[in-house]
Amino acid sequence: MEKTQLIEAMERIVGKEHVLHSPEALYEYSYDATPGHSYMPDVVVSPGTTQEVSEIMKYANAHRIPVYPRGSGTNLSAGTAPLKGGIVLLMLRFDKIIDVDLENLIAEVEVGVIVQDINDHIAQYGLIYPPDPGTVKTASLGGTIAENSGGLRGLKYGITKNYVQGLEVVLANGDIIHTGGKNVKDVSGYDMTKLFTGSEGTLGIVTKALLKLLPAPEATKSMIAVFDSIDDAGKAVSGIIAAKIIPATLEILDNATIRTVEDFTHVGLPVDADAILLIEVDGNPVVVEDEKAKVLEVLKANNAREVTLAKSAEHKAQLWTARRMALPCLAKLRPTTFVEDATIPRSKIPDFLRIVTKASKDHNVTIGTFGHAGDGNMHPTIVCDLRDEDEMKRVHDAMDDIFKGALALGGTLSGEHGIGLGKLPWMEQQHGKEGMNAMKAIKRALDPNLILNPGKLLGEC
Amino acid sequence: MEKTQLIEAMERIVGKEHVLHSPEALYEYSYDATPGHSYMPDVVVSPGTTQEVSEIMKYANAHRIPVYPRGSGTNLSAGTAPLKGGIVLLMLRFDKIIDVDLENLIAEVEVGVIVQDINDHIAQYGLIYPPDPGTVKTASLGGTIAENSGGLRGLKYGITKNYVQGLEVVLANGDIIHTGGKNVKDVSGYDMTKLFTGSEGTLGIVTKALLKLLPAPEATKSMIAVFDSIDDAGKAVSGIIAAKIIPATLEILDNATIRTVEDFTHVGLPVDADAILLIEVDGNPVVVEDEKAKVLEVLKANNAREVTLAKSAEHKAQLWTARRMALPCLAKLRPTTFVEDATIPRSKIPDFLRIVTKASKDHNVTIGTFGHAGDGNMHPTIVCDLRDEDEMKRVHDAMDDIFKGALALGGTLSGEHGIGLGKLPWMEQQHGKEGMNAMKAIKRALDPNLILNPGKLLGEC
Repeated sequence: MEKTQLIEAMERIVGKEHVLHSPEALYEYSYDATPGHSYMPDVVVSPGTTQEVSEIMKYANAHRIPVYPRGSGTNLSAGTAPLKGGIVLLMLRFDKIIDVDLENLIAEVEVGVIVQDINDHIAQYGLIYPPDPGTVKTASLGGTIAENSGGLRGLKYGITKNYVQGLEVVLANGDIIHTGGKNVKDVSGYDMTKLFTGSEGTLGIVTKALLKLLPAPEATKSMIAVFDSIDDAGKAVSGIIAAKIIPATLEILDNATIRTVEDFTHVGLPVDADAILLIEVDGNPVVVEDEKAKVLEVLKANNAREVTLAKSAEHKAQLWTARRMALPCLAKLRPTTFVEDATIPRSKIPDFLRIVTKASKDHNVTIGTFGHAGDGNMHPTIVCDLRDEDEMKRVHDAMDDIFKGALALGGTLSGEHGIGLGKLPWMEQQHGKEGMNAMKAIKRALDPNLILNPGKLLGEC
Repeated sequence: MEKTQLIEAMERIVGKEHVLHSPEALYEYSYDATPGHSYMPDVVVSPGTTQEVSEIMKYANAHRIPVYPRGSGTNLSAGTAPLKGGIVLLMLRFDKIIDVDLENLIAEVEVGVIVQDINDHIAQYGLIYPPDPGTVKTASLGGTIAENSGGLRGLKYGITKNYVQGLEVVLANGDIIHTGGKNVKDVSGYDMTKLFTGSEGTLGIVTKALLKLLPAPEATKSMIAVFDSIDDAGKAVSGIIAAKIIPATLEILDNATIRTVEDFTHVGLPVDADAILLIEVDGNPVVVEDEKAKVLEVLKANNAREVTLAKSAEHKAQLWTARRMALPCLAKLRPTTFVEDATIPRSKIPDFLRIVTKASKDHNVTIGTFGHAGDGNMHPTIVCDLRDEDEMKRVHDAMDDIFKGALALGGTLSGEHGIGLGKLPWMEQQHGKEGMNAMKAIKRALDPNLILNPGKLLGEC
């Protein structure tokens, strides 16, 4: 069909002021935070109501036009890149926190709301919404639902999926459905809420969500531990869990990351250390003191060379500079940054880090690794130059070693960023042909014309 | 096809000794713990390996023969009743606890294992598997996965779904797939694990599961509180949560239940009380003491007439007689017992109990209600006589009032028993035509010949 017809149709539905189609605008929405994926859409449409989303979907479905839901575009798997042209569906006008139900500890929130804004709003009630991806200050709720985002508190508090209790979703055919609800226990029908959460916009357009909230922890205690051996650091991680302590945060940085951060920040990090662990326990003040003491014992028993306890919030912020600056510093090294999120069972962290180090050497690429040690969600971060074809070949080979290595350790391709386009080549290896067929059957059942974020997560269906 | 051909085919796959087809055997497997649903199967088959299940499914799929997976048959929604004849697939030979991974706190368990046996086995490591349906000593793991069973600890610890991290599933076409894994964070592909969990055997045959385990709580404190007013009891429930305490158990019994239990047991229950709450807090000993004190304050503030603290495990068992005996005593009143599990947001408990009381009076049926107050998962239990047609009509009308009332309060048809056959009439009201269509599309995608537990959960597809 003619592009002008499409634009006019969209303008009729949402109003002229909410439709973009200048070359500049289209370019702006041709990519997200993932390097190497830029595809021009035909139009960028910002609906303001669920009904408008429904009308857009009916039109798109009738005319077989691809639709890509998008929030802030911070995702790291090319999840919002408009691979096959069509409509970028910008959901940022869905920007209301509709209700906070204090009796049932449930918030009703539209998908365009920024995740940090939810937490800022509910702080007055002493409540938290735990999922905290690195992009918490910029990512929209909808994006984190589509990608089932994790973050630093995943081990103790779980990830986005654990807090999404209900959804309003517009299906490919324009049908509006409501899944789940405020009920803690609910086994009426298939768990559609969990199916849509993490489906990367390939099964429906989420417009609203019911989010479970938690009481904020009363106390926290943070510390940093330095290790001469990655094996000892790994053993300390397993040892903490084996001591029946579930820290709110349990992060690891490898030597390459430590050195890079120190080069840029000069905060005095131990550049000869093999690994640093950052640990925070939280909860009841008495328990926190008790757990702190037990963690210190485990760290000592596993040869931590140095442990520093945070004396204040400022001191914690200072100690945690290394973690906060890990990605920005690594990204400064070279023009292009791939933040991967291969994840392994936590007992396999040292094995996995050895695989990463070997891949880095074998293929001569620079990789710094940091991540969420408590849940085995690692971020091997490859810095390179997208314009260097030879280097990109080596980057791909290194990724291949890393992903296959993670799968061989019983891991998964993605702990929190999603599959999108980048990890498609390894999907069949993880899920088998039969597993892929089952997922593709579900995709085709809910989106028979394959217009919802086509080509993502499952590849061609 | 001829029934003898089917029996011979099954005997070829699993061996003669694992196939039952005598009239007595077929009758034995014609029903489960749900009154009013008995349908004769053609054959009862007990496979011993996943490969055998796959071969059975291939045969059944090719010949369009219905298949009903079954464990101990304790479910309360006719989930295993062989509605359309065919094969009852008895999974009790899948009886092994394959592995307990202490580093990652994951157990690998076959579906025929009894849930309590998992807990008995892991107690030596100081671990628990929290889901504890009333039938924990008889229900098979597979049944609790199919129904996504809850139990008394649902509020604090969640339900079966929250502990199932991965599955081995045989699809309708015989394909064997593996979903999820040991990774705490995993966003690779659709969440097939959660889709199969609670799908009541309509999407695939689960053979094995990876179960998340938790450290056992160090201390517990139990108490019982008596209320003259159901509203006060309801406010106490909300008040405890508002005080940011999440008890491990928070159960309620209404007056009809209290009177019935006292009639049969003579343990000295307050027959004039409007409601009893049973509360247990658990965790770190210091926190438990602190929470106990706060709970006592809330109970007093909401006019609890009497509160008794358990002094020992034996004393607790004595205090909790009322809860433990609620269903057995109600069931003794009349020949037939329907245990429903309509669930509402916890703030709506008093409203819901009023609806139940009204339905009981309006339709002249006997209903005792008890249940999991903390998560709004109520068990209005209707006792009657299935042979009395007029009474059954009134029972149905009362159920209609109760289910519609629960939905109007933002509730759900089932908190933990599943939809099966009994609640089908109200499904469209909860999920809408569009929601039902979406679920039916998924069913048809994974089971195009509609052989997996046909007619359940969604009705005709």
